[in-house]
Amino acid sequence: MSLARKDILGTQEMNAAELMSVLDATESFLEVSTREVKKVPTLRGKTVINLFYEPSTRTRTSFEIAGKRLSADVINISTNASSVVKGESLKDTAMTLAAMAADVIVIRHPASGAPHFLARHVPSAVINGGDGTHEHPTQALLDLFTIRQRKGSLTGLRVSIIGDIAHSRVARSNIFAMRTLGMEVCVCGPASLLPVHVESLGVRACTDLDVAVRDADILMALRLQLERQEKGLIPSLREYSQLYGLNLKRLEQAKPDVLIMHPGPINRGVEISPEVAEGPYSLILDQVANGVALRMALLYLLAGGPGM
Amino acid sequence: MSLARKDILGTQEMNAAELMSVLDATESFLEVSTREVKKVPTLRGKTVINLFYEPSTRTRTSFEIAGKRLSADVINISTNASSVVKGESLKDTAMTLAAMAADVIVIRHPASGAPHFLARHVPSAVINGGDGTHEHPTQALLDLFTIRQRKGSLTGLRVSIIGDIAHSRVARSNIFAMRTLGMEVCVCGPASLLPVHVESLGVRACTDLDVAVRDADILMALRLQLERQEKGLIPSLREYSQLYGLNLKRLEQAKPDVLIMHPGPINRGVEISPEVAEGPYSLILDQVANGVALRMALLYLLAGGPGM
Amino acid sequence: MSLARKDILGTQEMNAAELMSVLDATESFLEVSTREVKKVPTLRGKTVINLFYEPSTRTRTSFEIAGKRLSADVINISTNASSVVKGESLKDTAMTLAAMAADVIVIRHPASGAPHFLARHVPSAVINGGDGTHEHPTQALLDLFTIRQRKGSLTGLRVSIIGDIAHSRVARSNIFAMRTLGMEVCVCGPASLLPVHVESLGVRACTDLDVAVRDADILMALRLQLERQEKGLIPSLREYSQLYGLNLKRLEQAKPDVLIMHPGPINRGVEISPEVAEGPYSLILDQVANGVALRMALLYLLAGGPGM
Repeated sequence: MSLARKDILGTQEMNAAELMSVLDATESFLEVSTREVKKVPTLRGKTVINLFYEPSTRTRTSFEIAGKRLSADVINISTNASSVVKGESLKDTAMTLAAMAADVIVIRHPASGAPHFLARHVPSAVINGGDGTHEHPTQALLDLFTIRQRKGSLTGLRVSIIGDIAHSRVARSNIFAMRTLGMEVCVCGPASLLPVHVESLGVRACTDLDVAVRDADILMALRLQLERQEKGLIPSLREYSQLYGLNLKRLEQAKPDVLIMHPGPINRGVEISPEVAEGPYSLILDQVANGVALRMALLYLLAGGPGM
Repeated sequence: MSLARKDILGTQEMNAAELMSVLDATESFLEVSTREVKKVPTLRGKTVINLFYEPSTRTRTSFEIAGKRLSADVINISTNASSVVKGESLKDTAMTLAAMAADVIVIRHPASGAPHFLARHVPSAVINGGDGTHEHPTQALLDLFTIRQRKGSLTGLRVSIIGDIAHSRVARSNIFAMRTLGMEVCVCGPASLLPVHVESLGVRACTDLDVAVRDADILMALRLQLERQEKGLIPSLREYSQLYGLNLKRLEQAKPDVLIMHPGPINRGVEISPEVAEGPYSLILDQVANGVALRMALLYLLAGGPGM
Repeated sequence: MSLARKDILGTQEMNAAELMSVLDATESFLEVSTREVKKVPTLRGKTVINLFYEPSTRTRTSFEIAGKRLSADVINISTNASSVVKGESLKDTAMTLAAMAADVIVIRHPASGAPHFLARHVPSAVINGGDGTHEHPTQALLDLFTIRQRKGSLTGLRVSIIGDIAHSRVARSNIFAMRTLGMEVCVCGPASLLPVHVESLGVRACTDLDVAVRDADILMALRLQLERQEKGLIPSLREYSQLYGLNLKRLEQAKPDVLIMHPGPINRGVEISPEVAEGPYSLILDQVANGVALRMALLYLLAGGPGM
């Protein structure tokens, strides 16, 4: 099992066969985290570097746990992009890490395209852990895995992604991958938070949550960045919540077996109510658990261990 | 060897048999840190998360070393409670870590009760690494172990705890455990730093250090939080030191074999003089060394490895 | 293979035999980082603590990778010297870490002499990871190793060190070691950045880069701390770059096989041009790669594993 690419930079560039092969590999790693001894020697002696230019607890922890359960040496570097000279400096950091024989560099960076820039300059495998408003491919891949786990297959499923589509790398990565896999995607949010020409990505757009909820197999709420309000892009949290929050009342109009997703961390009572987040159709914690397995699979596929 | 509880949240809820069983387990782990190869495979493949919402070097490092010497995978998460939405957010963080299959979560948090809240919501074992002014049970347990190591037994020993009793989670956890184990406890400090009705905890209270020193088998000085002065709770560091500092002159009135303890980090020359801190009866470094063994024991008891 | 000293505090106190024995030991570890499985059990069960009172990505990461490839348990402590009571507090931190059975403490500290102070108070081996403007011995040792790797031997080679000599611990450590090993050293920079009486260290000093470039076997550019300009020690970055920057035009006057070094991180276009930094005679990435091997060698020599 292997992948014919050096890096995972985005879902936009991955074809259906590649996407499915990552999901298939994830199956094998899901069981490891349920063992009494949650550890396999697969990546023993490999070096994985978490290079985070933005604060992150969830994604960094998920990658760190994934690496350690594969027996890799994991090094965390947390830094502040604003205190760093841009551009060449990132290149030098990357070349330095590569010279230390890093096998995989996971990078999160506020500048869209930073992981691609880095990948061009180092022989190490690069995984995009989120770049600006561009892509967050590991989130989309774990979302797809989670949906497939419940539904059995993906083609033809209808997904509505709700919230701040314009600034969401999670939305973008999901849209690319879902379209490639033949899923129907509707994006929904206030007009101020929908990208211009979003239909060119092959999705439907609407500003009415009732339309997005009806007929959807999956409802994916996005985290509302609370600073959007300060920037005047939404009138108030209260109004946002009334118009675009997923709550039990809204779900009355949904399919009876609709699945609820959220990349986390959630703003309870804003984009999702506690009852929905913890309700029977919520996959939020499955997403988290699958995230470790998905990242184990990617580290394995890119760092090329000899097998499990 | 095991413990009939999922979490270690405080000494208040532990009975004498439980306390002694933790101390007994600690004996077995003390030797590991003296080996040429300071490592046992006990918790291989277990995941221990240090979730610290307050800065800490000493406690975090002690838990990290303890976990690693047991071969666990240890993940550090340092965050700032002030930048976090309280309450539900902690719950979501906890559920996220549990979904990543964390076996043990060590939490330090400025809000009293945070570890208990967390423990109710996750299947992972939770260890309280210090919560507000409430409890710091692992400190008390290592203190008890250190005393027993020197004195052979605990019942009937007289302990004087000196300093800012009102704000000290170390004092509270020690008081609970010491009373349960039949020790006599005297708390001593300026009236502004003694809790109201402290006698209801089964301890004597006094404001005269000479009284507290006389007849005590153990003198435990607490770290003075220097901001207490800014809040007007003590007149000046100089006066505090004169009235409540442990120095050689004070010790002339103590038992000849009195033992000196301090949870660290010490303010030299404030609550304790360098001569006393480094003197022959000081157990301060024993406390540190035993702290690693005690935390190994707790991780072992809660994460349930197959044996050493 | 061993070293007759407990600590590595500076190159000033190391004699030629010691220096060469460290370089020889490094050879053995260089190959480990090129293996499929980059890991040896040499320091299994040893505890290495990175105690950094100054921000550092490169040196800390290098030590962390070195420790992990030797199978040691590595603990990072990053703290801010300005928020710490000086002096005694460092002593207490050190004694605490020693009580936790730390085998090696790597310390970086803004105060010159801090590692020496610490070394006197703990049984743990201490490695100076950079102290104030005093020494950075592991950088100098990796520089020497890198030169020897290319040139075969060191005696008689001519090195010009260019830049802010007055404030550079890298320069000082290199000067000490290079003089001990019989190399000729020229230091070059604006008069405001040359130490007074620098000739007493056995080096030539000049303010004309052309003189420093001519006849040199190695040109070592130092990182210009950009705050030097604010302090009025240099007129402008532009002028500094014109007078002291290494660029292709300058190199026309150098020996055809001149080697280019820089401790990193580089300010591209200030002290070195991109063409030179990435040119065929640049050893900058060799320095990084050798840094991991050199630090593995030092950890091995000081923590005394049973062998590879």
